[in-house]
Amino acid sequence: MVPHLVTALTGPINELEQRVLDSMPAIERWFRLEWMEHTPPFYSSVDIRNAGFKLAPVDTNLFPGGWNNLTPEMLPLAVQAAMAAIEKICPEARNLLVIPENHTRNTFYLSNLAQLARIFHMAGLNVRIGSISPDVKKPMRIELPGGESLTIEPVVRSKRRLGLKDFDPCTILLNNDLSAGIPGILEDIHEQYLLPPPHAGWPVRRKSHHFKSYEEVSKRFGKLLGIDPWLINPMFNQCGEVNFAEDTGMECLTTNVDALLGKIRRKYKEYGINEKPFV
Amino acid sequence: MVPHLVTALTGPINELEQRVLDSMPAIERWFRLEWMEHTPPFYSSVDIRNAGFKLAPVDTNLFPGGWNNLTPEMLPLAVQAAMAAIEKICPEARNLLVIPENHTRNTFYLSNLAQLARIFHMAGLNVRIGSISPDVKKPMRIELPGGESLTIEPVVRSKRRLGLKDFDPCTILLNNDLSAGIPGILEDIHEQYLLPPPHAGWPVRRKSHHFKSYEEVSKRFGKLLGIDPWLINPMFNQCGEVNFAEDTGMECLTTNVDALLGKIRRKYKEYGINEKPFV
Repeated sequence: MVPHLVTALTGPINELEQRVLDSMPAIERWFRLEWMEHTPPFYSSVDIRNAGFKLAPVDTNLFPGGWNNLTPEMLPLAVQAAMAAIEKICPEARNLLVIPENHTRNTFYLSNLAQLARIFHMAGLNVRIGSISPDVKKPMRIELPGGESLTIEPVVRSKRRLGLKDFDPCTILLNNDLSAGIPGILEDIHEQYLLPPPHAGWPVRRKSHHFKSYEEVSKRFGKLLGIDPWLINPMFNQCGEVNFAEDTGMECLTTNVDALLGKIRRKYKEYGINEKPFV
Repeated sequence: MVPHLVTALTGPINELEQRVLDSMPAIERWFRLEWMEHTPPFYSSVDIRNAGFKLAPVDTNLFPGGWNNLTPEMLPLAVQAAMAAIEKICPEARNLLVIPENHTRNTFYLSNLAQLARIFHMAGLNVRIGSISPDVKKPMRIELPGGESLTIEPVVRSKRRLGLKDFDPCTILLNNDLSAGIPGILEDIHEQYLLPPPHAGWPVRRKSHHFKSYEEVSKRFGKLLGIDPWLINPMFNQCGEVNFAEDTGMECLTTNVDALLGKIRRKYKEYGINEKPFV
């Protein structure tokens, strides 16, 4: 289901959008078959830029936040999607432990966390929130705007399992992107489902790999729709070591940006797009 | 997700309802595990009677109508559920043929059919409607209230497949309960998915079997919730041959009704329910 965006344009439907709408059955079938070959991430969020003539993902987050931004109409869809994901990955699940980011003072992030817990509770799990931050030494009850509250508890690690004082989860959901590296407390957990797997965190992933893979997918998808994959794929180049603080790698950066702008300019000319390219 | 009923009571929540709400995670888990053991019907509708102190299904339809009664808010949930059902049963599906009831003149039924087709179209299938009625000899375009229209076409049977003139479906969805028996045109179709399987039609099923099976399920479910299964299960007895036109079997009927009323009366007494039993 494509949610209706409040910022949706009211003008005539663009050629690309019309092509997508017309191809809906083929697209949905393509996704069904892809999901048979590849296990999709348990959850994710994608930032999309829509230029009207072009529509492309620019950032994919495997530890998504912003759940509090869902409208009330979207909540039942999120619950139904959560149910389907649980049924696929861990149907026997009973208790879910959510591990949040360590910076637990931001109200927006905490509201996001409360909404995430609500979604999985409504999907039929007992949900509690356990922090791996060394600063959380005892349960903290936090009042949120709107009258709801949230309790964050310190995790307890035994030899083989991670949980809370009186809560043994079969499934652990990371909402912490582990940007500081995979902490020891999450290592050697083999009896519990850890979602997404910690090797999906930034210490291991590279954006350049991600966009390389996405490029392959967008080629196949473009072929299915009969469109230039450029229309759904952001162009990119990769430099080796760039360090803004030490001013190293700048030459590679400027050369690559120039090359990229040139490529985009040619595409704009090809499609008669009267815009100034940017990176 | 429990949809919010417009007829919902606004009084204090009943004991049974509270028990169900409190047990939500256990109930959802129970369903997830049951779906692993048993394949649920592709679609169905259930008539439920809610007495406040008791809540029980009284009729289950495996060829459900009334899709036009879904509110706009429920439509996305129906589409998402349809997607999940297709993904489970026939992910490679592309074309769906819906076989409607033969009495195709009732406006409510036709609106229901249009909504059903819309749901599966939005779920990503090419949907067309093919009648097995001998009266439908060429495509009929029918205008519906609200400005939409519906085309019903005659089915074309080849040696091994059923379809339309220029439409070869991989999946055939029955919205016809085959109360007149399984017609020859639906026999020996082995290359296409036929949903639900024709042996689920009334010529083969018996309500007494259905309620016997439901009784078993409600016992297990009652145990899970710690409630008397009677609270979710309608009592029933079965007579052999009853024919109202020929006035036969009436003695068995009156004896059974009396026995049933007595049983219900005892249950009402046990729970202090001040109501008059009826069957």
